[in-house]
Amino acid sequence: METHEILEKVKNGQISVEEAEGYFKRQPFEELEYAKLDMHRKIRSGFAEVIFCSGKADEHLLNIFGRLYERDGEVFGTRATKEQYEMIKEHFPQTQYDPISRIVKIEKEKESKIGCIAVCTAGTADIPVAEEAAQTAEYFGSHVERIYDVGVAGIHRLLAKVEQIQKANCVVAVAGMEGALASVIGGLVDKPVIAVPTSVGYGANMNGLSALLTMINSCSNGIAVVNIDNGYGAGYIATQINRMGVKNNG
Amino acid sequence: METHEILEKVKNGQISVEEAEGYFKRQPFEELEYAKLDMHRKIRSGFAEVIFCSGKADEHLLNIFGRLYERDGEVFGTRATKEQYEMIKEHFPQTQYDPISRIVKIEKEKESKIGCIAVCTAGTADIPVAEEAAQTAEYFGSHVERIYDVGVAGIHRLLAKVEQIQKANCVVAVAGMEGALASVIGGLVDKPVIAVPTSVGYGANMNGLSALLTMINSCSNGIAVVNIDNGYGAGYIATQINRMGVKNNG
Amino acid sequence: METHEILEKVKNGQISVEEAEGYFKRQPFEELEYAKLDMHRKIRSGFAEVIFCSGKADEHLLNIFGRLYERDGEVFGTRATKEQYEMIKEHFPQTQYDPISRIVKIEKEKESKIGCIAVCTAGTADIPVAEEAAQTAEYFGSHVERIYDVGVAGIHRLLAKVEQIQKANCVVAVAGMEGALASVIGGLVDKPVIAVPTSVGYGANMNGLSALLTMINSCSNGIAVVNIDNGYGAGYIATQINRMGVKNNG
Amino acid sequence: METHEILEKVKNGQISVEEAEGYFKRQPFEELEYAKLDMHRKIRSGFAEVIFCSGKADEHLLNIFGRLYERDGEVFGTRATKEQYEMIKEHFPQTQYDPISRIVKIEKEKESKIGCIAVCTAGTADIPVAEEAAQTAEYFGSHVERIYDVGVAGIHRLLAKVEQIQKANCVVAVAGMEGALASVIGGLVDKPVIAVPTSVGYGANMNGLSALLTMINSCSNGIAVVNIDNGYGAGYIATQINRMGVKNNG
Amino acid sequence: METHEILEKVKNGQISVEEAEGYFKRQPFEELEYAKLDMHRKIRSGFAEVIFCSGKADEHLLNIFGRLYERDGEVFGTRATKEQYEMIKEHFPQTQYDPISRIVKIEKEKESKIGCIAVCTAGTADIPVAEEAAQTAEYFGSHVERIYDVGVAGIHRLLAKVEQIQKANCVVAVAGMEGALASVIGGLVDKPVIAVPTSVGYGANMNGLSALLTMINSCSNGIAVVNIDNGYGAGYIATQINRMGVKNNG
Amino acid sequence: METHEILEKVKNGQISVEEAEGYFKRQPFEELEYAKLDMHRKIRSGFAEVIFCSGKADEHLLNIFGRLYERDGEVFGTRATKEQYEMIKEHFPQTQYDPISRIVKIEKEKESKIGCIAVCTAGTADIPVAEEAAQTAEYFGSHVERIYDVGVAGIHRLLAKVEQIQKANCVVAVAGMEGALASVIGGLVDKPVIAVPTSVGYGANMNGLSALLTMINSCSNGIAVVNIDNGYGAGYIATQINRMGVKNNG
Amino acid sequence: METHEILEKVKNGQISVEEAEGYFKRQPFEELEYAKLDMHRKIRSGFAEVIFCSGKADEHLLNIFGRLYERDGEVFGTRATKEQYEMIKEHFPQTQYDPISRIVKIEKEKESKIGCIAVCTAGTADIPVAEEAAQTAEYFGSHVERIYDVGVAGIHRLLAKVEQIQKANCVVAVAGMEGALASVIGGLVDKPVIAVPTSVGYGANMNGLSALLTMINSCSNGIAVVNIDNGYGAGYIATQINRMGVKNNG
Amino acid sequence: METHEILEKVKNGQISVEEAEGYFKRQPFEELEYAKLDMHRKIRSGFAEVIFCSGKADEHLLNIFGRLYERDGEVFGTRATKEQYEMIKEHFPQTQYDPISRIVKIEKEKESKIGCIAVCTAGTADIPVAEEAAQTAEYFGSHVERIYDVGVAGIHRLLAKVEQIQKANCVVAVAGMEGALASVIGGLVDKPVIAVPTSVGYGANMNGLSALLTMINSCSNGIAVVNIDNGYGAGYIATQINRMGVKNNG
Repeated sequence: METHEILEKVKNGQISVEEAEGYFKRQPFEELEYAKLDMHRKIRSGFAEVIFCSGKADEHLLNIFGRLYERDGEVFGTRATKEQYEMIKEHFPQTQYDPISRIVKIEKEKESKIGCIAVCTAGTADIPVAEEAAQTAEYFGSHVERIYDVGVAGIHRLLAKVEQIQKANCVVAVAGMEGALASVIGGLVDKPVIAVPTSVGYGANMNGLSALLTMINSCSNGIAVVNIDNGYGAGYIATQINRMGVKNNG
Repeated sequence: METHEILEKVKNGQISVEEAEGYFKRQPFEELEYAKLDMHRKIRSGFAEVIFCSGKADEHLLNIFGRLYERDGEVFGTRATKEQYEMIKEHFPQTQYDPISRIVKIEKEKESKIGCIAVCTAGTADIPVAEEAAQTAEYFGSHVERIYDVGVAGIHRLLAKVEQIQKANCVVAVAGMEGALASVIGGLVDKPVIAVPTSVGYGANMNGLSALLTMINSCSNGIAVVNIDNGYGAGYIATQINRMGVKNNG
Repeated sequence: METHEILEKVKNGQISVEEAEGYFKRQPFEELEYAKLDMHRKIRSGFAEVIFCSGKADEHLLNIFGRLYERDGEVFGTRATKEQYEMIKEHFPQTQYDPISRIVKIEKEKESKIGCIAVCTAGTADIPVAEEAAQTAEYFGSHVERIYDVGVAGIHRLLAKVEQIQKANCVVAVAGMEGALASVIGGLVDKPVIAVPTSVGYGANMNGLSALLTMINSCSNGIAVVNIDNGYGAGYIATQINRMGVKNNG
Repeated sequence: METHEILEKVKNGQISVEEAEGYFKRQPFEELEYAKLDMHRKIRSGFAEVIFCSGKADEHLLNIFGRLYERDGEVFGTRATKEQYEMIKEHFPQTQYDPISRIVKIEKEKESKIGCIAVCTAGTADIPVAEEAAQTAEYFGSHVERIYDVGVAGIHRLLAKVEQIQKANCVVAVAGMEGALASVIGGLVDKPVIAVPTSVGYGANMNGLSALLTMINSCSNGIAVVNIDNGYGAGYIATQINRMGVKNNG
Repeated sequence: METHEILEKVKNGQISVEEAEGYFKRQPFEELEYAKLDMHRKIRSGFAEVIFCSGKADEHLLNIFGRLYERDGEVFGTRATKEQYEMIKEHFPQTQYDPISRIVKIEKEKESKIGCIAVCTAGTADIPVAEEAAQTAEYFGSHVERIYDVGVAGIHRLLAKVEQIQKANCVVAVAGMEGALASVIGGLVDKPVIAVPTSVGYGANMNGLSALLTMINSCSNGIAVVNIDNGYGAGYIATQINRMGVKNNG
Repeated sequence: METHEILEKVKNGQISVEEAEGYFKRQPFEELEYAKLDMHRKIRSGFAEVIFCSGKADEHLLNIFGRLYERDGEVFGTRATKEQYEMIKEHFPQTQYDPISRIVKIEKEKESKIGCIAVCTAGTADIPVAEEAAQTAEYFGSHVERIYDVGVAGIHRLLAKVEQIQKANCVVAVAGMEGALASVIGGLVDKPVIAVPTSVGYGANMNGLSALLTMINSCSNGIAVVNIDNGYGAGYIATQINRMGVKNNG
Repeated sequence: METHEILEKVKNGQISVEEAEGYFKRQPFEELEYAKLDMHRKIRSGFAEVIFCSGKADEHLLNIFGRLYERDGEVFGTRATKEQYEMIKEHFPQTQYDPISRIVKIEKEKESKIGCIAVCTAGTADIPVAEEAAQTAEYFGSHVERIYDVGVAGIHRLLAKVEQIQKANCVVAVAGMEGALASVIGGLVDKPVIAVPTSVGYGANMNGLSALLTMINSCSNGIAVVNIDNGYGAGYIATQINRMGVKNNG
Repeated sequence: METHEILEKVKNGQISVEEAEGYFKRQPFEELEYAKLDMHRKIRSGFAEVIFCSGKADEHLLNIFGRLYERDGEVFGTRATKEQYEMIKEHFPQTQYDPISRIVKIEKEKESKIGCIAVCTAGTADIPVAEEAAQTAEYFGSHVERIYDVGVAGIHRLLAKVEQIQKANCVVAVAGMEGALASVIGGLVDKPVIAVPTSVGYGANMNGLSALLTMINSCSNGIAVVNIDNGYGAGYIATQINRMGVKNNG
C-alpha cells in the first residue's frame, strides 16, 4: 500500500514531512486515480472500456482502438459504419464486424459464458438493437438466449417461449412502434426486465419516443428503461444483474 | 314530398311563380335543413342527440335537457357532476344518475339490446371511461359485454376471456398508463377494435398522451383510436359497427 | 379431436399416464398454436399476411415474399421502393408495382369486390396514402370509391359528393395539413369514419402530428383515427367494417 | 412646433446654445414621448387602453381603472372575476359586468357602430371567448354580427349563414376541440379571417394547442391566428381591418 | 334567373313536375357550383389560383401549370425547385424563376400596383420567406415596400424605418430565431401586422416553433400569425387587407 | 399434480374420456390460472400484491385492503391520503401510516432484512419518493441504506458516502430538477442503478419530464429508469436485483 | 495545517503509521469537507445559504430557519407563503415578509450596496419575479436599479431608460408572454444580460415555455437564460458578475 | 459636438431655423446612428462583428467577409464549411480554417490574452462546440483554459481539475446527452457558469433539448444557459464577464 509506504518513509526519515505533505495534498485525486485504477481492475474482470464509434474521426477512432487493444488484448466498438470497420481492418486485420449490430471488435477467446440473459424483440426490425445488446452482454461474458419476433400482435408467439424466458436472470425487451412487449413480459417473469425502446416505426412514434413513454408508464412491475436504441446500455446493466444471479447458483 | 307539392301548386296556379321562386331560393339550406331532419330521423332510430354536460351553466343545461326530453321522451347526458344531476332532478324527478360513468339520463323502456360489443379495461381505474362507453352503446341499443381489469401485466386474465371477446362485433379497449391492452386484443380478434386511451396514470403518462401514442402506433391490425377518456365517442362508433354486424346475422 | 384421441389411448392403456402428461404440459401453447392456425384460416378468408417492405434487407424481403407467394399464390407488400420492386421482379416477373401507393404485389384474379368503402382525400398530395388504403381494401376484397381532392377549403367540392359518400359502409378520410376533412365528413354520414392523418404540410404541422391531433379531437361523432400515413391500417379496419355491412345486405 | 420655437429662441438669443443643446440631448426620447402622445391620440380615436384584469391585485386594478376613467370618461377591462367587478362597483357604481365575456366596463354612449365584423363560433362553449371578441370590437366602434354554434360537425348550420358571413369586412372564427371551423369559413369568404383557438375540449386538445395547430396549418387562404382564448386580440385586429373596409364605402 | 325560368315552364306546362323536381333535387349543389363560379370571378379579380409546387410530380405540375396559363393567361407557383422551373421552361419559354423566393411564374403586364404593404425581416436569412410574401402580394396587385434586416438586436435599424412602415396599410413581419420583431413592430404601428415565423435558426428554435410561439404570445395588439415559412399565406391576407385600405383613400 | 391425477382417473375409469376432455379444453387457461397460482406463490415468497390507493373509492379500497389482509395477514398500500388511512383504521386499528411516503400498511413481523439497497436522494424534497422506494424494498425483505440530500450541487456530500453506496447490491437514485445525481452515481459504482425522476422543481422541469430525460440520456453505464415519482417501482425492481446479490453471498 | 501535524507526529513517533494510514484513507473526503468549509467561508462573504420555502413542512422550515439564523445572524427565504411567514414570525418576531416577492427574511444592517444591477420587466405582472431577483441581489450586497414595465409593445418606454440600463454591470431582463424584452436589451447594452422567462401569460405560452424558448433563441449577443420564474437564480449570478465589475472600478 | 455646432450656426444666422429644424427632425435616428457608431467603437475594442456563415450564399459570404476585412483588418466567421473556406481562400489566401470548430478567420496579431475563461466539456464529441466557444473568446482577447472530457460519468476526472477551473473568471460548461456537467461544476466554483447544451447524443436527447432542460433546471447556483450548440454565444458572454474580472485585478 502506497500510503503505508510513504508513512513508513516519513517515520524512518527517508522523506521529509514537507515531501510527504506535498504528496498528500495531491493525493485526494490520486486516490481517485486509484479508484480509477480499481475501476480499471473491475473493467478487466468483465467491463472493458467500449468505444462509441458513431461520429468519431478516423484518426481518433483508430488511435483509441489501437490503444485499448494494446492494453487489453481485445477491443469492442459499437455503432461502427462499414467504412470505419474497413479503415480499422487495414491496421488490425483480425478485426471482426457484424453489419447487423454494427459492432466492430477483436475478441480474446473467452471461457464459457455464464448465467442467462434473454434478449427478446417485438419484430424483426428491432433485431439490430437487440444484437447490440446481446453481443455486448456476450462480450462481457454472459450467456444470451435470443428470442426474436415475439411481439404482442401475435401473443401466442410470446407465450410459446415463456418457459425459456423465465429461466433467465434478466430479460432485455426490445420493441419499437408502441413498445407493448415489455409490459407483457413484465407480467410473465419474476426477474428484472430491462426495456429498450427502438426508433422502429413511423408517424406518431416520433423516432421512438412513443415506445419510450409506453415502457416508462408500464403497468407491470420489475421494469426499468434505457434510452431509445440503446442496446449497449441494456446489455451492460443486464450483465451486471446476470452476474449476481450466476454467483447465486454457484 | 314538399318539392313535389310546391311544383304541383305552381302548375295548378295555386301559388305564383314568384312565391315558388322565393321558396327555392331559400331551399338549398332548407334542403340541408331537411337533411338535418333526416339526420333527426336517423337519430330517433338510435342516435338521439346527447348532452356534453361538463362546464355547462345550470340554466343552459336544464333548458337543453328539458327540450330534448320533450321532443324525444328520453334524454342522455355525459360528464355530469352530482350537483348538475341534483339540479336537474328537482325539475325531472325521474332522472337517473350513475356516479361512476357520470351519465345522467331519462331513458324509455328499450326493446332488447342487439348484437354484441365487448368493452374491456386494463385496470379498475379505467372503469369510469369504460362505463361511459358501455352505457352509451346500451342507450343506443347495443348489447354490451363488460370485461374489466384484464390488463397485460397479467396476460392470463385476458386470455381467459378471449373466446368471449371474439364473439363481439366490435371491441372497445379502454386503457391508461402505457395502454398496451389494445395491441394485445388486436392480435386476438378479427373484428374492429376501438381503442380508448385514458388519463389514468401519473408522471410521464402526461394525462393520457402516452396511452394515446401507444394505441396510435399499435403494431396490431384492425385498431383505430378516439380521444383520451372519450368513452362516449367509442360507444357511438362501436354501435355503428355493431349495427352492421347485427343486421348481418338477421 | 386430438385431445379425445389421447384420452382414449390413456384409457385403453395405449400410452402411459406419463406420456400423456408430457403432452398436456406442452399443450397450452400447442392449443395456442392451433389458435394461430385458426387465425391462419381467417387470414386465408380475406386477410392474408402483408409485408411492410420499408427498411427490409433485400434477401430478407425476397425470402418472405417468396414464402408467402408459395403458400398463398399471391402476396402483397406496402412501402416498397422502386429498387425493391425491381429486385423482386427479377425473381418473380409477374410482380406488379404502383409507384404512387408504393404497393408491390402478385395478385390472384379476384371475384368481384363486395360492399363499398369511400376513400376521400383533402388534397392531391394525400393521394399516395389514400391509394395505400384503397388498394389494401381492394386486395382484401372490398369495392372502393375514390373521392379525391375534396378538402374543406372548397367545401362545395365535398358537398357535391355527399350522396356518393353516404352510400359507403365505411369512409376513410385522408388529410394532411390541418386535417379538418374528417370532422366535416363525420357530420355528413352515419357510418364509421376512419381518419388517416398524413404528413403532408410543413412548418407547424410537425410531420402530421397537427392533423393527427385535429382528428383525435374531432367534434363529430363516429370518427376513429389511425397512425400518420397509415393507409394500410385504414384499409384493413375499413374492410373489417365493410364486410359486416355487406353481409347485412346479402 | 416645439423644435421650431426653441430654434427661434436660439436665433433670437432668448436661450443660450447650451440650454438648447441640453434640450436636444434629451429630445430623442422626448420625441419618442411625443410619439407616445401621438399614439395616445390614436388611442382616443378608437383604441383606448384596455385593462387585462386577470391576476391584478385589487388596489392595483382599482387604481388603473380609476385613472383611465378619469382621463377618458370610459374604461374597459377583460378577464375580470365577479369579485373584481363587485370591488370596482363599490367605487364606481355605474360599472357594468358581463359574466359570460368577463368584461367589466364603463362605456360612454357611442355613435352608431360602423362596418361589420362577423364573429362565429363552433359550439356554445366557445361563446365566452367570442363575446370577449365581439364586445371588444363593439367598444372600439365596430358593428358585430354574432353567428354562434355553427361548427363543422353539422355543416348545414354554417352553410345557412354563409351569405350573412360574406357581408362582413372581417370574420372572427372561434373554435376549440379540433378547430376546423376557420378552414371551412376561409374557403367560403373573400375577407380576412382571424382565427381564435379556444381551450374548449379535453384529452389530446392540450388546452387549446390542438385547435391552434389546426388553424395555423389551415389549407384555406386568408387566415391568420391569435393566441388561445384571445378574444380581445381578435376583436382588436378585426376592428383595425373593419375600419379600413368601412372608410372604403364612405 | 334559371329558377324563375323553370318555374315558368312548370306553370306553362312546358316541363313536367317530375322533371322540375329532378332539377331541384340536384340544385343545392348546382347552386354551390354557382358559388364556385362566383368564387372564380373573385379570383379573376385578383386572387388567381396559385400552385404549391413542392413535391408535385413533373407531369402533374406541368399539367396544372399549362391549364391555368390557358385559362388566365398568367400563372404563379410557389416553392418550385430549379429543376421544376427548367422542366416547365422547356414547354413555356416565357416562364420566369426567382431562386430566392422559389417562385415560378408567367405574369401579364399589370396596371400599377395599389396601396402599400410593408414587408419587414429580422435578418437576411429570412429574405426568402419575405420575398415569397412580397412577390405574392405584388402578383395580386399590391405595392410592396421591402424593409429587410431590421431585427431587434439592433433596434435603431428598425426605428430608422418607422415612418416608412407606419405608412403601410398592413405590415408583414418575417422573423426566425426568437421572432421578437413582430411584437416591436406591433407597438409602433396602428395597422394590422401579419407575423410570419421562419425556420431560420438552430437548436431550441425547433425549426421555427419557437418563433411561432413568440408571435402567438405577443404582448402587442394588432398581430395575427400564419404558419412557419408561409410567405404566400401572409402575402395573400395582407393583400386582402391592403385592398380595403386602398379603396378607402380612393 | 392435477394433470397426473386426472389422467390416472381416466386410466382407471374413474372419470370418462368426455369428462376429462372437458377439463383439458378449459385447461389452457386453467393452466394459466395455475401460472397465476405459481405467481401467487412467488408473491407470498416476497412480492405480495400491493394496492395503489390513489383515486380509489373508499368502499373499493377498504374491500381490497380487507381481502388481502385476510389472505396474507399483511397488506401494503401506496399513495394513500390521510383520509384513506383514517377510514381504513376504523376497521383495522392496527393499520400504520407514514405521511411522508404515504404508505399505509399492516405488516407482519419480518425476519431480518437481507442484502443491501442504497436509496439516495438529491434533495430533501425528493425524500417522499425515496421513502416509497425504501419502505417498499423493506416490506419485500431488503435491507435499505438511506443516503439523502447528496445532490450534485455539493458533490463532496456524495463523495463522502461513496464507500457506503458501493457496498449495496443495487442503488436507487432519486432526483428531481435536473436529475443529474443518477449519472454521477453511475460512474462511482459497479452495481445497477435504478434512477427515479421526481416531479420536484418548477418551470421548465415540466413536472419531472426534465429529470426523466436527463436520466434516460445518462452518459454513465449501468443505469435504467422508472416513471416519474415511481418510488414503488424502483423499490420493487431493486429488491429483485438485491435478492440475486444476496443469494450470491449466502 | 492538519496534514502537516499528522506527518510530524508520525515522524516523531507520536502516532503509529497505521493510525496515520487510517486517517489518510478517510482524508480525501475530509479534505472535501474542508473544501466545504471553504465554500462556507465564501458563503459568509456574500452568498449565505438561502431557503427555498415552497413545499417545506412547517417544522422543517422553522428548524432550518432557526439554525441559519443562529449561525449567521441573518436568514433569507424565497417562495414563502403568508402562512409560512406568520408561522415563523411567532418564533422570530423580527422576521420581515414581502408579499410581492414572497421573500421572508431577517437581515443584518448592511454596509452600502455596491455596483449596479439593472432589473427590468416587460410588464407589471412580471414584478414578483423581478423583486425576487432584485431583493436577492440586494441581500447579497448589490445595488439594484428597478426599471419596470418597459415591454417591447411600447418600445419608447424602454428607449427612455437606455442610458440608465447601460450603466449597470449586469442586466436582469424579466419577461413573460413572448419574452422579447431580453433580445432588445441585449442589442442596447454591452454588459451581460441574464434573461428570466416568467410564467405570465396564457394559452400557447405554456406556463413560460414560450418565453424561455424566445430567450434561448435570442438573436442578440450577451444573453444567457435561467429557469422560468427563477428570480433567485438570476439575482445570484447577476451578483457574481456585479462583484467583478465593482472591484474593477475600485 | 455636432448638435452644438448647428445651434451655434443657428445663433449666428449661418443656417436658417427651418434648415436646423429639418436636421433635428431626423436627428433622433441619427442620434441612434451615433449610438450605432458608439457600438461600433465598442466593437473595435473587442467585439468585432462576426459572420454566421451557415447557409449563406457564396457571393453573400465573400462580400461580407471582404467588407469586414477591409474595415477592421481582421474577420471572424463561425459555422463555415470546408467548401466555404476554400472559396474564401481563393480571394484571401491568408485565411485560416479550423475544421473542428468550423471557424474561418483572418486574425491580426493580438496582444497577450487577458484574464481566464475555463472551457470544459463532458466528452470528446462536445469539443467542436467547445472550440467555437474557446476560439471566439480568444478572438475577443480572453485567455482560455481547455479542460476537455471531464464528464460526470467519471467524476474523478473533473475533481482532478477543480483547482484549475476555480481560477477562471468564468466557466463555460459544454455537454450533450444528459448535460449534468454544468450542475456539478456550478457546485464547485464561485464564478458564473455559462452552460452550453450540445446536440451530442441520440434517442430521447432530442437533438440537445434534453441537455438544455437539464441545464435550465440545474439545482446549482450561478448557472445560466445559451442555445444548443451555441459555442459562439457562450464565448461572447464569457468574454464580457472575463473582462470585468480582469480589470478587477489590474
